[in-house]
Amino acid sequence: MKATVHVTLKPGVLDPQGQTIQRASESLGFTRIRDVRQGKFFEVELADGDDTEAARAELERFAREMLANPVIEDYRIEFP
Amino acid sequence: MKATVHVTLKPGVLDPQGQTIQRASESLGFTRIRDVRQGKFFEVELADGDDTEAARAELERFAREMLANPVIEDYRIEFP
Repeated sequence: MKATVHVTLKPGVLDPQGQTIQRASESLGFTRIRDVRQGKFFEVELADGDDTEAARAELERFAREMLANPVIEDYRIEFP
Repeated sequence: MKATVHVTLKPGVLDPQGQTIQRASESLGFTRIRDVRQGKFFEVELADGDDTEAARAELERFAREMLANPVIEDYRIEFP
């Protein structure tokens, strides 16, 4: 079973990487790029098994404990 | 206008970060995490304007030239 996890900075948390990309875009001739926010994206393959609920619970814990920093980041899990 | 861009490693390109996360998950008691692939995810705000086609073309060029490394990465643009 494959799931995806999006990890993004919480609203209001400064994103220096995104700002740097946006400023660089202006100097490289892009005129319409107003704002860029960068996040992480994970494709997670879970062991096939009958217990989907247990697999979902484990992925939730995995995202919270290993993929996102709950102080400054939000995460969103999507199952197929 | 807001669009999202997913940048992922091309199939077959080694993902040491993803492998490290997967191995660490085992040592931390996760039993179902078989594989992890890490990518980047961008939320891009484009200037409002009447010319959506030109904005899409500019975002395509921006993704190809500034967000992804076409040698080892694929990118996917999603418009609202």
